[in-house]
Amino acid sequence: MALCGPTSGTGVWWELCGSWGTRQAAPGLSLTSPPRQKEVHSTSPCSLLQMGWGDLGVYGEPSRETPNLDRMAAEGMLFPNFYSANPLCSPSRAALLTGRLPIRNGFYTTNGHARNAYTPQEIVGGIPDGEHLLPELLKGAGYASKIVGKWHLGHRPQFHPLKHGFDEWFGSPNCHFGPYDNRARPNIPVYRDWEMVGRYYEEFPINLQTGEANLTQVYLQEALDFMKRQQVAQRPFFLYWAIDGTHAPVYASRPFLGTSRRGRYGDAVREIDDSVGKILSLLRDLRITENTFVFFTSDNGAALISAPKQGGSNGPFLCGKQTTFEGGMREPAIAWWPGRIPAGQVSHQLGSVMDLFTTSLALAGLAPPSDRVIDGLDLLPAMLRGQLTDRPIFYYRGNTLMAVTLGQYKAHFWTWTNSWEEFRQGIDFCPGQNVSGVTTHTQEEHTKLPLIFHLGRDPGERYPLSFASTEYLDALRGVTLVVQQHQKTLVPGQPQLNVCNQAVMNWAPPGCEKLGKCLTPPESIPEKCSWPH
Amino acid sequence: MALCGPTSGTGVWWELCGSWGTRQAAPGLSLTSPPRQKEVHSTSPCSLLQMGWGDLGVYGEPSRETPNLDRMAAEGMLFPNFYSANPLCSPSRAALLTGRLPIRNGFYTTNGHARNAYTPQEIVGGIPDGEHLLPELLKGAGYASKIVGKWHLGHRPQFHPLKHGFDEWFGSPNCHFGPYDNRARPNIPVYRDWEMVGRYYEEFPINLQTGEANLTQVYLQEALDFMKRQQVAQRPFFLYWAIDGTHAPVYASRPFLGTSRRGRYGDAVREIDDSVGKILSLLRDLRITENTFVFFTSDNGAALISAPKQGGSNGPFLCGKQTTFEGGMREPAIAWWPGRIPAGQVSHQLGSVMDLFTTSLALAGLAPPSDRVIDGLDLLPAMLRGQLTDRPIFYYRGNTLMAVTLGQYKAHFWTWTNSWEEFRQGIDFCPGQNVSGVTTHTQEEHTKLPLIFHLGRDPGERYPLSFASTEYLDALRGVTLVVQQHQKTLVPGQPQLNVCNQAVMNWAPPGCEKLGKCLTPPESIPEKCSWPH
Repeated sequence: MALCGPTSGTGVWWELCGSWGTRQAAPGLSLTSPPRQKEVHSTSPCSLLQMGWGDLGVYGEPSRETPNLDRMAAEGMLFPNFYSANPLCSPSRAALLTGRLPIRNGFYTTNGHARNAYTPQEIVGGIPDGEHLLPELLKGAGYASKIVGKWHLGHRPQFHPLKHGFDEWFGSPNCHFGPYDNRARPNIPVYRDWEMVGRYYEEFPINLQTGEANLTQVYLQEALDFMKRQQVAQRPFFLYWAIDGTHAPVYASRPFLGTSRRGRYGDAVREIDDSVGKILSLLRDLRITENTFVFFTSDNGAALISAPKQGGSNGPFLCGKQTTFEGGMREPAIAWWPGRIPAGQVSHQLGSVMDLFTTSLALAGLAPPSDRVIDGLDLLPAMLRGQLTDRPIFYYRGNTLMAVTLGQYKAHFWTWTNSWEEFRQGIDFCPGQNVSGVTTHTQEEHTKLPLIFHLGRDPGERYPLSFASTEYLDALRGVTLVVQQHQKTLVPGQPQLNVCNQAVMNWAPPGCEKLGKCLTPPESIPEKCSWPH
Repeated sequence: MALCGPTSGTGVWWELCGSWGTRQAAPGLSLTSPPRQKEVHSTSPCSLLQMGWGDLGVYGEPSRETPNLDRMAAEGMLFPNFYSANPLCSPSRAALLTGRLPIRNGFYTTNGHARNAYTPQEIVGGIPDGEHLLPELLKGAGYASKIVGKWHLGHRPQFHPLKHGFDEWFGSPNCHFGPYDNRARPNIPVYRDWEMVGRYYEEFPINLQTGEANLTQVYLQEALDFMKRQQVAQRPFFLYWAIDGTHAPVYASRPFLGTSRRGRYGDAVREIDDSVGKILSLLRDLRITENTFVFFTSDNGAALISAPKQGGSNGPFLCGKQTTFEGGMREPAIAWWPGRIPAGQVSHQLGSVMDLFTTSLALAGLAPPSDRVIDGLDLLPAMLRGQLTDRPIFYYRGNTLMAVTLGQYKAHFWTWTNSWEEFRQGIDFCPGQNVSGVTTHTQEEHTKLPLIFHLGRDPGERYPLSFASTEYLDALRGVTLVVQQHQKTLVPGQPQLNVCNQAVMNWAPPGCEKLGKCLTPPESIPEKCSWPH
């Protein structure tokens, strides 16, 4: 059932997208829920938080401090070729919940060629009303939905998660940056459902010095409590657990601080791993594992600009967050559904966070909307029957198609890490890595003659195929067809991330008056947002 | 029981160092061998072959094509912090079998500062008679020993493995380079015990075009046959399975060719993985798993100069073979001993291939020689009781101490990848990697103020600690003490890898006359060997 997306620019994305039960079981699904449960439910926890592919023991992190996630993989199915929909948080999460590429759902900017954009406090845009979000559709099958953690699809009233299908929310609309002075910039609010209940660095402290914050524990309790309540009510549920402890500023609660061999970032990973263990354990205690689909993934690659103290590992892959190299978009991914998904399996299906939308609908017996293009693939054939489906992975940066992967071949149409200007200031998305002609600091066009890599032999994108080889020509032929098809039919959505305005920041969120925490916004001056990379 | 070492410059090192049974069980060992077996035996298969840390699924190789090794890890203990004794094959293997650093056992050169050396055909030196090799010592406890594969400790008559404790040999004295013309240079012989039975590219074909060779299958049969015979004879055994299919020129047998998602290198890995499965399966069939200790490791890191078609992956680590960065010496390592070593465990013990010497002796109830320094540590406390022992890892290149790791800290006293001259010719030990001031192409001295990395936070050696930090000063204090102690007491052995002579090549190995394959050596002209890096 449900699924998860990534949180980018943040820590770890683990969504618990639950639902247990569906009257019309997905094809090939034989549900054996206890008799008292007429309706079969399914839940799917996902966490999203810019954790890197290489941060899990099961993906080769040398300190191997994720026993719960590793066990989840041993009991479930690993997807080593699983991708976020964008190298940055907001667009990736918008894609997860809509099943559509950011270029379609509007989570991109046209303010600069190949520039990433997201939803800081001054953003005017957000998730358009015309987009159908997963929880909104799951409602049709009787699901209760909750988001715990970072929303990141817009913080103005019309973008509130409860206006887009979620029944409950505990968390924040933007990243946990701060502290701010509440004059030039307000601290980020934390919401319970419709109203704010405090702000980061005020009611919800994060100690930047020590890294201490108990937020992951709070988010864990919210998740556990929600699941227990749905079980009592015998309601199918979808839980989207979008934590962010591994997003700079990285934090962990006291019992985990200083316990990792990897420093503070590792402490945060350990706490998230522990929480995943507790979530799966509760599913066992509630005896709903057979009706609950759980997926763990991330919203973008590890942020190497924050490494090593506040950033993770992308394993053998090139570069990290913000880039369309593998390190920016290849994500850890584990599917877990004991008794349904065979244990200890690896699927080489090319997967995407957008597939969690389609797969969840399938699990709920629902069809995806037919009036629009849906990019997500139903992963049930891969998970239940080991079937592999050919499909491309598109790597966008803003409104620019940077690369595409088809089978084992990845073609780059544009290469760029960041500008020389930024790089000279020490902003490095590829520390210690330098592939000549590939990790470029000027935007290099290769649309006529893309750089093509074989990701099986060369997962690190170090050895472009020779332009003259038969292998190159064959790969190019396949890629060209797919891209032409994609671009011919593409209707970009209205770009949501172009306009900024200081007045739209979180000055006076609903509920602020009860807490005496309303602030006065400045004069409204809409401006073109500036996106540095 | 026995253990294994790595084969460097080669493919995969998997030693089957067996012994099952020992009258005096190792401390803490409770042996429960069947009653008919008065003597408890133990075997330990190891394979060595310059397979990289990142080549195993369990260490995060994205294609995940090593189900047997992954299962071995799930049933045994993983050592993510396990090291070869040198970034090159011959010295690393000499260290494995003697339990001593190459600087002590003579497997180094003084011909150039910080230069690696090995045993090509023209080498005059080899393993000195004064060194005690593991099989020689195991004889004292009644063990039968066999080496299958590449020996690499010298090919002149006095260095023959059967003169150094092995009872059987099937394999070659040098790398499987070729084909040669048998005029300027003879093809490498393949021995069965005392005599050659043919030469590579003649009786033992390797098709460089297709990559086809059935050598791994032959080596597998040799291993299985040896184990069966020892079981029938109720003899404890030590099997050193030193295969080299993943060493360029990479090869695999027909059933494996073209089956990997990773190309030819992956085909070779798959065949080795399959063989490991068959070896462990035989131990189960013979019902000697409880008396058999098995260790899998490699003799040096993946040779990135041969990547991506003929070289493997060092996962998240820096550079590869030939270098003293982690990619050159951190090795895959799995210990397997069902019923004794707890299943599914990870040990953070800093380990070395030299430990396999000491551990094997302990398993056989033997003490290591007391008249010399032994660098190997007994790993039984780590394996059986989860105990961690502080110990340094020394990284030598030739006679130069390049670096040391102590706990989580690694200090570099010298940095060098290879010369500008070589690098400009395209010889690159760190393709796609470039850490400013670290991956240097001139030999940079840091003995006064070493570069120090925290390997937990920064396994890729990208972020040297700040010289001014307390953390740096604390780490430096510890490292300095250990290095002073090491250097004060160090007595280097007679260097074996300084002198070369075309006349000592494999012109007329014993047995050549029976095959009509004796060649005439040229005039004997001893020369100083030249070591390029």
